[in-house]
Amino acid sequence: MCPAPTARTRVRRQAERADYDRDTLYAIVDAAHLCHLAFADDTGVHALPMACWRIGDQLYLHGSNGSRMLKHAVGGAQVCATITHLDGLVLARSAFNHTMNYRSAAIYGVCERVADADKPAVLDALMDKLAPGRSRQARPGNAQELAATTVLRLPLHEFACKVRQGGPEDDADDLALPVWAGVLPLRLAPQPAQADSDFEPTPDYVRAWR
Amino acid sequence: MCPAPTARTRVRRQAERADYDRDTLYAIVDAAHLCHLAFADDTGVHALPMACWRIGDQLYLHGSNGSRMLKHAVGGAQVCATITHLDGLVLARSAFNHTMNYRSAAIYGVCERVADADKPAVLDALMDKLAPGRSRQARPGNAQELAATTVLRLPLHEFACKVRQGGPEDDADDLALPVWAGVLPLRLAPQPAQADSDFEPTPDYVRAWR
Repeated sequence: MCPAPTARTRVRRQAERADYDRDTLYAIVDAAHLCHLAFADDTGVHALPMACWRIGDQLYLHGSNGSRMLKHAVGGAQVCATITHLDGLVLARSAFNHTMNYRSAAIYGVCERVADADKPAVLDALMDKLAPGRSRQARPGNAQELAATTVLRLPLHEFACKVRQGGPEDDADDLALPVWAGVLPLRLAPQPAQADSDFEPTPDYVRAWR
Repeated sequence: MCPAPTARTRVRRQAERADYDRDTLYAIVDAAHLCHLAFADDTGVHALPMACWRIGDQLYLHGSNGSRMLKHAVGGAQVCATITHLDGLVLARSAFNHTMNYRSAAIYGVCERVADADKPAVLDALMDKLAPGRSRQARPGNAQELAATTVLRLPLHEFACKVRQGGPEDDADDLALPVWAGVLPLRLAPQPAQADSDFEPTPDYVRAWR
């Protein structure tokens, strides 16, 4: 379950936080709506936010055919897709030991283009990740819309996760200092749904959104 | 307020969402606890999460002297620091028009190392961003801790923001479809603070954390 990492996925700083377990990776990916995709082109190195979703051992990305990122990413270039969930601010008694709680995954590889015939099912999976069952409700993409969309897959093979959870870890000499210490947790939390117009019945995923 | 972008910061896809205004940039940076820093080294292209904060027209990053990212970033290499706030899922009546609400900023440039003499004030600003006033409460970094920390600044000069807000934008032909449409908002929300031990008085920033 913990493949030997490659040179670029071996976590060196705070290696005790490293996790190469596939279940950890999948949990981080499945909880994410977006990743930051790093790639290099002739203007430099970029990190751009993209929606992402998983089917099996593949991470999927999509966008307009005209996207320079996608054009570049289909060209066989190496990319790095990184997901980070920020779970809290960790306030230690010393400035130096302040940190954050987070779950992150960096996935390295080369993207492949998803064949036209496979796009509808792959895009349905995105829709159903956003809102379970919605792929059977919204109007499906027509031929023109599907043709205008590039869908890429990045194998979930070369990756490193890094996770930090729990309270502050202060130096022993600092534990008696008169300073509040603890965690200020954060969560990407649903807020009340905003309907675009009156519509009944309200779907389950809208009623459950809170 | 809207400098002419460079070739790599000119937003081409959905250019109506582009914003080169410095106030927009500062608001996105100041609301963020972390960015994804993209850089390239001899093992490839990376995007790694890092804490970030702003003083004036500089973005600051820090880490251990041993960090390969920081070692590389101080070497004069071009980097891209990207921040994305996800504000909601936008459910349109057609699959194709589904999107997300977000505020993102991509900042390009070359990092400079912050001089040792300037580190304490710059790190205090990070602390006070996490928790206002805390830089006067926590034990300050000692000489050894400060020496072990590399602090970098990235000028907020070459950047592009991209913002999408509001409800779904459906094709006119789709407006009458029997499909719920609207926004499922998201917010990185404070959760109840977790004290590491009993301590009185509770600081203002802990009591206000919710």
